[in-house]
Amino acid sequence: MVKVGILQFAPVLGDVKANVSQVRELVTSNKRCDLYVLPELANSGYRFNNRDEVILAAEKVQSSYFLKELMQLAVHKNAHIVTGFCEREGSLLYNSSVLIGPEGLVGVYRKLHLFMDEKDFFEPGNLGLPVYDTPIGRIGMLVCFDWMFPEAWRALVLKGAQLIAHPSNLVLPYCQSVMPSYSLVNKCFIATANRIGKERDLTFTGQSVLVDPTGEYVLKGSIDQTEFLTVEVDLKQSDNKNITPRNDVMKDRRSDVYGDFNVR
Amino acid sequence: MVKVGILQFAPVLGDVKANVSQVRELVTSNKRCDLYVLPELANSGYRFNNRDEVILAAEKVQSSYFLKELMQLAVHKNAHIVTGFCEREGSLLYNSSVLIGPEGLVGVYRKLHLFMDEKDFFEPGNLGLPVYDTPIGRIGMLVCFDWMFPEAWRALVLKGAQLIAHPSNLVLPYCQSVMPSYSLVNKCFIATANRIGKERDLTFTGQSVLVDPTGEYVLKGSIDQTEFLTVEVDLKQSDNKNITPRNDVMKDRRSDVYGDFNVR
Repeated sequence: MVKVGILQFAPVLGDVKANVSQVRELVTSNKRCDLYVLPELANSGYRFNNRDEVILAAEKVQSSYFLKELMQLAVHKNAHIVTGFCEREGSLLYNSSVLIGPEGLVGVYRKLHLFMDEKDFFEPGNLGLPVYDTPIGRIGMLVCFDWMFPEAWRALVLKGAQLIAHPSNLVLPYCQSVMPSYSLVNKCFIATANRIGKERDLTFTGQSVLVDPTGEYVLKGSIDQTEFLTVEVDLKQSDNKNITPRNDVMKDRRSDVYGDFNVR
Repeated sequence: MVKVGILQFAPVLGDVKANVSQVRELVTSNKRCDLYVLPELANSGYRFNNRDEVILAAEKVQSSYFLKELMQLAVHKNAHIVTGFCEREGSLLYNSSVLIGPEGLVGVYRKLHLFMDEKDFFEPGNLGLPVYDTPIGRIGMLVCFDWMFPEAWRALVLKGAQLIAHPSNLVLPYCQSVMPSYSLVNKCFIATANRIGKERDLTFTGQSVLVDPTGEYVLKGSIDQTEFLTVEVDLKQSDNKNITPRNDVMKDRRSDVYGDFNVR
């Protein structure tokens, strides 16, 4: 069994220290989890006015203060953490999700599908759709607006993901109601950690969710409160792809007709 | 605007004349529609005990009594009809969906993903995922359990389908709640015509739905009543793939990462 904790809170725009403090407070004041999932751009906030603001807030993976602090938490709690991360590599910026374990950095995913003005700031993701085989299970990552693209979820599950961690800064009202459909047709767990609060002209929609492979909500957060949502789940449930004794929903796929998502 | 009518009823097992009568009664006793959508295997019923029963009930497209009668209705109403169809071609059987127009047969789709014991009776579909450009709009078809495969829906929309007609004999309770997610992420109309009633050990779940490109139910049938559900919709809504002014959900796809569904 894996204890998952979703951190729903409001990152502060451009204040990485305040954001570390919030994460530290939520993690240390609650019982230990095996896996923590944080919102999108948890180190930086979201609503930048221009690219210069992003440059000031972005961090390199290797030298990030935010990730260094989270790695200490991961060691202290002997846990894994998935966090949204405003990333700089050279002169390029990415809206990323980082997986950390007790032994340090596990992997980075860069958001494939950029939303609205993000197209002015960030490069489209260039690291594909990695799945990481960790001691607690096989973890894939997607970020916020990636939810609109069912092929990304399918590809991760075809690559073996048992749980898709989904750091988000959702402003549209749709995603949380779609996640049960995605978890059902893929027979996987989905953990959407959404932020709350307002930033400039945007209001975020909270209601973080964890959904199980039967399409049922296991966790559902409030619309506007800081919350630490936690539940114990059996990720091996994701390995059973039978919806009937004679229907394995992955083996029944007709890749001869619609292709294989470049998963081989 | 296109007036869509969903026929929710209980086909009678192995009694094609009774099934024609039910369709004729529902169509002629209601106001004219542009497009009628009928359940899966509407000519034959569903719960066969063995392949011999299917052979007795199946019809060839070219010589089908059921389709000939429906073609007369299509002429009489100057309408299109999508119907589930128990099809025989030579010695092979298919769980098909047929599109008929006022000028006769438009096209055939054969169910790609067979459910449970259907695997003993029918061949897997071998006609791909056709989309038909008709005077009322671009129509794709899927049948019942195909709902579990998001790639089939995506492929049809990428091929231009504005409305996916979905003849069904659903016994599981999930599909109708997933259709809003599919219509939203594909920004298309979905018309699921589900049957009602019991046949041998199976109870069908009714609740036929029509869902629009915003993911809202436009029609929703009862669980167990014969019904003629009708509404007027603007299929051109499906041509607008913008979920924000800067996000076209088809153009934003990352086919470089997860492929193109063999749609070129």
